Amino acid sequence: MRAFTDERDWAKFHDPKSLVLALVGEVGELAELFQWLPADRAVQLAAADPLRQRVGEEMADVLAYLVRLADVLDVDLAEATRKKLENSAERFPAAEVHGEAPEKI
Amino acid sequence: MRAFTDERDWAKFHDPKSLVLALVGEVGELAELFQWLPADRAVQLAAADPLRQRVGEEMADVLAYLVRLADVLDVDLAEATRKKLENSAERFPAAEVHGEAPEKI
Amino acid sequence: MRAFTDERDWAKFHDPKSLVLALVGEVGELAELFQWLPADRAVQLAAADPLRQRVGEEMADVLAYLVRLADVLDVDLAEATRKKLENSAERFPAAEVHGEAPEKI
Amino acid sequence: MRAFTDERDWAKFHDPKSLVLALVGEVGELAELFQWLPADRAVQLAAADPLRQRVGEEMADVLAYLVRLADVLDVDLAEATRKKLENSAERFPAAEVHGEAPEKI
Repeated sequence: MRAFTDERDWAKFHDPKSLVLALVGEVGELAELFQWLPADRAVQLAAADPLRQRVGEEMADVLAYLVRLADVLDVDLAEATRKKLENSAERFPAAEVHGEAPEKI
Repeated sequence: MRAFTDERDWAKFHDPKSLVLALVGEVGELAELFQWLPADRAVQLAAADPLRQRVGEEMADVLAYLVRLADVLDVDLAEATRKKLENSAERFPAAEVHGEAPEKI
Repeated sequence: MRAFTDERDWAKFHDPKSLVLALVGEVGELAELFQWLPADRAVQLAAADPLRQRVGEEMADVLAYLVRLADVLDVDLAEATRKKLENSAERFPAAEVHGEAPEKI
Repeated sequence: MRAFTDERDWAKFHDPKSLVLALVGEVGELAELFQWLPADRAVQLAAADPLRQRVGEEMADVLAYLVRLADVLDVDLAEATRKKLENSAERFPAAEVHGEAPEKI
């Protein structure tokens, strides 16, 4: 993404707020692919083209902007994710939350 | 994420539509961290804690759900992203789009 | 929202990109309330407090920022919505799309 | 939106999770219209067509799905928004927060 951006002189557009908006745009396109699918058949329906291809493309766009944001902010995304997952593992002990969705209210 | 999910018996919650909604929730938390920052000072302000720490955590959550969705859908996210970037490179030739934001209207 | 904003001298934060990010934050909170609910029981589960109360609050936040954005951009949101719905009615004739989800791929 | 939906027999697609995903899709399209605009020129750039027209359409789509969700959930959106704004007014007394963005960390 850094090379892609620099070759096009697009770094000047890539302040964090703009990149988050771009990420939102791609998440929106991903959401549109699933919005009207029956929840219990979505995996099956997304297993075949052309939906499979489109889902991969939109997930790729989300990752591309996330990685680009990490670069702009000098965040080590892999390390941050490992740490966050360790924290979540401590915060939600398997024995206590087994089979129950974490409360979001 | 697969191990984390299975240890908690949470796979039953992870249909694609639910995971996209969870992804949206995390993108929303990321957006909130930047929403009122001056655009031209966001990089600098996000370089110091506590914002730096919080941004890393929310980006991690976004990646975690994206990776989990890829697992559920059996999508090779790295490969999809490489392909998409190659396609974007062809679609936006550096010489033609140099220094100009791609039209979104 | 205009009075609320002016009384707090917050108009300086309300450029369109910041307001869209704030809108995204509220949509993210709304998404979190529904993410792990079974799709076929969501209406029923959201009919009782405390979820009912929380859903109303997050929907209110979404509307508040949307209305504020309309004010900042001098958009007549009610008129724009009437027009868009008329356009959608022409674009999707009832006889042609009856019972079928509009294609999003 | 209710008439529009019923005429097309689309109510069966409008469970809350699907509607929130549709809302996310429209917010994503709105975000895309602003993502690469300079923050300090966005109001001016969105004041002229074709951007003005497009922004109105995407804001309309956001409102349409929000109103439809309110209908499905039997939420009085106007009343919820008035209450929420009153609560926010108490939570953020003008004298205390004057000129300062509310902390989001």
